[in-house]
Amino acid sequence: MIVTKETLIELFLRGIETVSPENLIRENLRIFGPFVKVVRFRFRGGVHVLGSGKAAFRMAAETERTLRDRILGGVVLGPKGEETPVSKRIKFLTGTHPLPSQENLRATEEVLNYLASLSREDRFIFLLSGGTSALLEKPIPPLTLEELAVTTDLLLKSGMPIEELNVVRKHLSLVKGGRLSQITEAKGYVLVLSDVVGDDLSSIGSGPFYPDPSTYTDAYTLLREYGLWDRVPANVRGVIEAGMEGQIPETLKEMPRRIRHIIIGNNRRFLLSVRDSARRMGLRVRIITDTLRGEAREVAKVLHAMARHVAFRREPFSPPILLLFGGETTVSVKGEGIGGRNQELALAFLLEMEGDAKILLLSAGTDGIDGSTDAAGAVVGNEDLKHMDRKEMRKYLRRNDSYNFHRRYGTLLITGPTGTNVADVVLLYVEGRRWDF
Amino acid sequence: MIVTKETLIELFLRGIETVSPENLIRENLRIFGPFVKVVRFRFRGGVHVLGSGKAAFRMAAETERTLRDRILGGVVLGPKGEETPVSKRIKFLTGTHPLPSQENLRATEEVLNYLASLSREDRFIFLLSGGTSALLEKPIPPLTLEELAVTTDLLLKSGMPIEELNVVRKHLSLVKGGRLSQITEAKGYVLVLSDVVGDDLSSIGSGPFYPDPSTYTDAYTLLREYGLWDRVPANVRGVIEAGMEGQIPETLKEMPRRIRHIIIGNNRRFLLSVRDSARRMGLRVRIITDTLRGEAREVAKVLHAMARHVAFRREPFSPPILLLFGGETTVSVKGEGIGGRNQELALAFLLEMEGDAKILLLSAGTDGIDGSTDAAGAVVGNEDLKHMDRKEMRKYLRRNDSYNFHRRYGTLLITGPTGTNVADVVLLYVEGRRWDF
Repeated sequence: MIVTKETLIELFLRGIETVSPENLIRENLRIFGPFVKVVRFRFRGGVHVLGSGKAAFRMAAETERTLRDRILGGVVLGPKGEETPVSKRIKFLTGTHPLPSQENLRATEEVLNYLASLSREDRFIFLLSGGTSALLEKPIPPLTLEELAVTTDLLLKSGMPIEELNVVRKHLSLVKGGRLSQITEAKGYVLVLSDVVGDDLSSIGSGPFYPDPSTYTDAYTLLREYGLWDRVPANVRGVIEAGMEGQIPETLKEMPRRIRHIIIGNNRRFLLSVRDSARRMGLRVRIITDTLRGEAREVAKVLHAMARHVAFRREPFSPPILLLFGGETTVSVKGEGIGGRNQELALAFLLEMEGDAKILLLSAGTDGIDGSTDAAGAVVGNEDLKHMDRKEMRKYLRRNDSYNFHRRYGTLLITGPTGTNVADVVLLYVEGRRWDF
Repeated sequence: MIVTKETLIELFLRGIETVSPENLIRENLRIFGPFVKVVRFRFRGGVHVLGSGKAAFRMAAETERTLRDRILGGVVLGPKGEETPVSKRIKFLTGTHPLPSQENLRATEEVLNYLASLSREDRFIFLLSGGTSALLEKPIPPLTLEELAVTTDLLLKSGMPIEELNVVRKHLSLVKGGRLSQITEAKGYVLVLSDVVGDDLSSIGSGPFYPDPSTYTDAYTLLREYGLWDRVPANVRGVIEAGMEGQIPETLKEMPRRIRHIIIGNNRRFLLSVRDSARRMGLRVRIITDTLRGEAREVAKVLHAMARHVAFRREPFSPPILLLFGGETTVSVKGEGIGGRNQELALAFLLEMEGDAKILLLSAGTDGIDGSTDAAGAVVGNEDLKHMDRKEMRKYLRRNDSYNFHRRYGTLLITGPTGTNVADVVLLYVEGRRWDF
């Protein structure tokens, strides 16, 4: 078959459909006679539905369509601005993102109260997706949201790595670090739509139900180490000291057996879906990794070195072949341009190409939002080079202006927000033969 | 078999042996009855031996051992400081590196004169290796070496990319851009030991026998574009103007049929040798690319993402497997430390590891000299993490101090200068099972 950019776009869209909140819920929730089936688990009776994150509304709406009157009630917290589902069974609340506000605080209290009110006999489903860290948040009193924001800012500026920053943050929150497991006695199924590369459950939404091995003493030590202990708000010191003295319970240290995490959607699921679709089209395809990381423009060079080798040396795979990568690259912004990591990766990849083999690359965010642009990413191919000037390309890249570059040359991929998020993907198609132009 | 760091080191050393000047000459030059055989070509009678580059002496000495009295004479230019072979047939001259001096100029004149003195009936072998751009140089009179150095400096500081810089440089030289093909009428075999990723013959030693499509007008346009025309020495303007007026012939535009380039050693040859050695040991092995490029610490992340996927997902290869990469990464030095790109890649790779799969990585320069250190590179494995602290590791990386890091933890790879150079290689061994510690 002749593979074109449209082929890659079609495959991308099929992947998006697979990891859509609706499809993932349909795949994993069912009514089976008297039972509610949650993946491989089943139980009689009703269930409470809670949730938070950017995909929470769509996950919850589909849950309601699936479980209908088995739903006994619930509270679900999603982002402001999206259409809020109407339901008699589930209460839908909104919060701000990416910065939490008083609205989030009140909504979070409702979720906390609902969970706390459940008994040992109750069952709940918690629909967890990206964005939860900001949406679902309540600082440990008397600490305020403002003081928490000031603290996060201080830690970020100190150069503290994200893993250490999370140690401190989890110890200041009534939600993160497994606190939600602590406040309820009910049996719960946490259905996770993972936007985190590597699917670390303690990172997705800051792990509201998941154990956290770090301690108040660790948080204290870190603040001391970075010289921040005397600079954070007094209430931060207060909470941490109270924690060290045992007046505030530690974050969750062991996974209670009654709580189960089930990753229903992630980057790998997307890649597997694309792989299967491509095979059905008759394409040869390989998944290379689902944890791609690194500076976008440098990652592009390695990807091109692989593609080139396939095209010219037929190693380690013979062309034609579709190579799939998932993950999340980074961009160290130095210029004043507009763009996103996926668009920058595609631009840098184009700069590596020489045009003498047919190579196509689609690089996009599965949420449909790359950087702060209206594009999901970009689709480029060797034939694009015909119209492009390398010197111009380098200028766009230097300015981190990949969006304007791709807009100018018609290589943007625009899908609109997809309502789901399993990080980024790269579809790289390589042919061995020469390409005539 | 149990694969250890020593296995990787052994494989690396076998690769080095394969691309040693002696081995490559032995493989490609022979006496066969009345014939001299140069790879697949053969001819009767004698041959002249010329050459330049860092491997020139060892290539020439082996050529003499092989062809003995078939050698009619010759001039070979190598780096100062190395042991100079003694020969009645070939004149050995030395030059400075990486900055050319008057010594280089005089030696280059001898090579030019020798080549110019050959007739159409003569045959010569030219032994070309890395370092030639500096060793073999003579600016077009009245331009001086000092003015050439000043010009190169100006171009570099202007941010002119290397391909454009070479356009200018080739038009100021009596050697580069195919000038040597122009001054001789003899039949020549240029035996190339390639230290350039991708083996571009116009780049290796600045292509003394190889066509150059660019013109004096291009050189002029570039200097104008970068605002350097009025800043370069007057003699540079003089040469370029004379070239545009046709008073100085253009660089070589078409490959004369009497000159043949034969790449006898390159990165791929090294990788193929390691692949074959590994197979003979019973290992499964794949070559991924021989044109690896990018910032070392970012490349490490992509390599680790691949290794991790092989270890945990058994895709696209089932473990255990040895993955081979060749190429040349870069390091944007920001810190004050000591190191090289291979040592930095290995350090950054270690930082990605989590220790839960057996992964070993050897990253080294085939010349045995990584950066300006006495190490060829480094060999690291997941078990090394036992003794290491991530915070410390990050500090070393931030300071570009990979040499002191690897020295401290005993992970340096020291071979001494190998006398050959086919760029860098990475040997990446991945097992699927868990590693107990």
